[in-house]
Amino acid sequence: MSDTLLLVLDLAGIAVFASTGALVGVRKELDVFGVTVLALITGLGGGVLRDVLIGSVPPAALEDWRYLVVPAATALAVFVFHPAFGRMERQIMVLDAVGLALFCVTGAVKADEAGLNVLAASVLGTLSGIGGGMLRDVVAGRVPVIFRGELYATPAFAGAFVATVVHHEGYSEWWYALAFAVCLGWRLIALKRGWTAPLPPGIDHA
Amino acid sequence: MSDTLLLVLDLAGIAVFASTGALVGVRKELDVFGVTVLALITGLGGGVLRDVLIGSVPPAALEDWRYLVVPAATALAVFVFHPAFGRMERQIMVLDAVGLALFCVTGAVKADEAGLNVLAASVLGTLSGIGGGMLRDVVAGRVPVIFRGELYATPAFAGAFVATVVHHEGYSEWWYALAFAVCLGWRLIALKRGWTAPLPPGIDHA
Amino acid sequence: MSDTLLLVLDLAGIAVFASTGALVGVRKELDVFGVTVLALITGLGGGVLRDVLIGSVPPAALEDWRYLVVPAATALAVFVFHPAFGRMERQIMVLDAVGLALFCVTGAVKADEAGLNVLAASVLGTLSGIGGGMLRDVVAGRVPVIFRGELYATPAFAGAFVATVVHHEGYSEWWYALAFAVCLGWRLIALKRGWTAPLPPGIDHA
Repeated sequence: MSDTLLLVLDLAGIAVFASTGALVGVRKELDVFGVTVLALITGLGGGVLRDVLIGSVPPAALEDWRYLVVPAATALAVFVFHPAFGRMERQIMVLDAVGLALFCVTGAVKADEAGLNVLAASVLGTLSGIGGGMLRDVVAGRVPVIFRGELYATPAFAGAFVATVVHHEGYSEWWYALAFAVCLGWRLIALKRGWTAPLPPGIDHA
Repeated sequence: MSDTLLLVLDLAGIAVFASTGALVGVRKELDVFGVTVLALITGLGGGVLRDVLIGSVPPAALEDWRYLVVPAATALAVFVFHPAFGRMERQIMVLDAVGLALFCVTGAVKADEAGLNVLAASVLGTLSGIGGGMLRDVVAGRVPVIFRGELYATPAFAGAFVATVVHHEGYSEWWYALAFAVCLGWRLIALKRGWTAPLPPGIDHA
Repeated sequence: MSDTLLLVLDLAGIAVFASTGALVGVRKELDVFGVTVLALITGLGGGVLRDVLIGSVPPAALEDWRYLVVPAATALAVFVFHPAFGRMERQIMVLDAVGLALFCVTGAVKADEAGLNVLAASVLGTLSGIGGGMLRDVVAGRVPVIFRGELYATPAFAGAFVATVVHHEGYSEWWYALAFAVCLGWRLIALKRGWTAPLPPGIDHA
């Protein structure tokens, strides 16, 4: 895939993630700066965590100014037009699934390139996809929503694992599309059907 | 500026930040260890985050024992004499503004020296100034106060941006005083007049 | 001590820590993935923070797949059999004290090997022991329990300090047993007698 296309996709994914962070900030009644920081954390947090853990510092997000401008501009747009963004939440969740699938694949490849074992690279690929949302929720003072029954992280791990194996074994790059499709398809079906991850047995989840 | 003066200023800023963390810990009824950890996190957190992100590890805070002793001793003093410190909260906020201005300038310079672009260095300078307070609030279980309408981060970013440009363009070191003054003046006027950052439009912030 | 024995002890400590994280997750009614992530964070968080701060990346936890499999398998066991684990909480706290003592000693040695000063190495040794539990509580949305009067961190610091001095001065390895015993003994006596750390004076802790 061309580098330009990858950069555009990457920035688009960051913008979508950032918009979910900005919406949480608006609902928490944060000020314009808090909304922007929450958007930056959500859009860039997963990749930054991965880069710090593999020792690739400064992280990519700090090497190219576009990685900062895109989520900041997204935050300002959400801040001003939040009622419109709020109404598009369903569509944002679909785009968010696309971003998730993209970041899991690219994150897993980058972690495998750093020489990690297959399991660790899959975990870091998953972290690239879900880390921003986790940090968003912790900073905003709520237990990460992805831990509370919504099926979000399992598709992420599946996609990251497939991508890691493809890279580790040196298979054709076309197989990355499979990794991407596994994560995206699983996540979208879960969204549509309201699938949830298993809750602890024997507790009354009324 | 002489290195000794800079070290003294740095330690003084850390002590002031640490005292705000210790006060939050006392009010949360943490034990003496919790108060100390919260003080260390508040005093050193911003610089440590910056150093980890630019790959300058071990962080400066771990290279010189004074960076650990000063906030720890501050925490113990606040723990014992917290009613007196609590009554000085107004004065502490003024000193906190001085520490903020100092850390934004020195943080931005260090980030620019690491070869980041101007925007990223400004962001890391801001993080150096506000990161400790953010971590303090997250660990203490509250949404960071700097996200809730108080005008704190905007002056920080302004000061960091000016300092980054001064360093990046190689202007005379005297101009750092301007960066410092922009942050400090803006913050103090905001404190005095009760200026707040804009909240999301169309929400009833009663 | 042989490397194999150290690895087995290390993994055992991680499993115990992970089980406390998984139990918190079950009580917060997280899904199976949330429980697993909380277990991974609790089991590995302290060591990962230490490794990132001394620049030893990728962290040891990502270099050997067993460091990921052991806490994940522990999490699944707790998820399924949580009533049984819940009833063993007292025994788990004793094992947790053993893990704490072990991690403080090994963490302090690793930090001292990285060339830090004695105080900083002691702090990082303490962080190796208590960092996972701190992160667990922050992610689970509660103020870290180790900050709220339970005597946990003081024994950790004592053990880490002794271990750092032993390593720094090049004393015989047998003295590590003393560091281990100081932390473990202090913690176990505190558990048994209900010792607590001092709370701020003059506040009614009713």
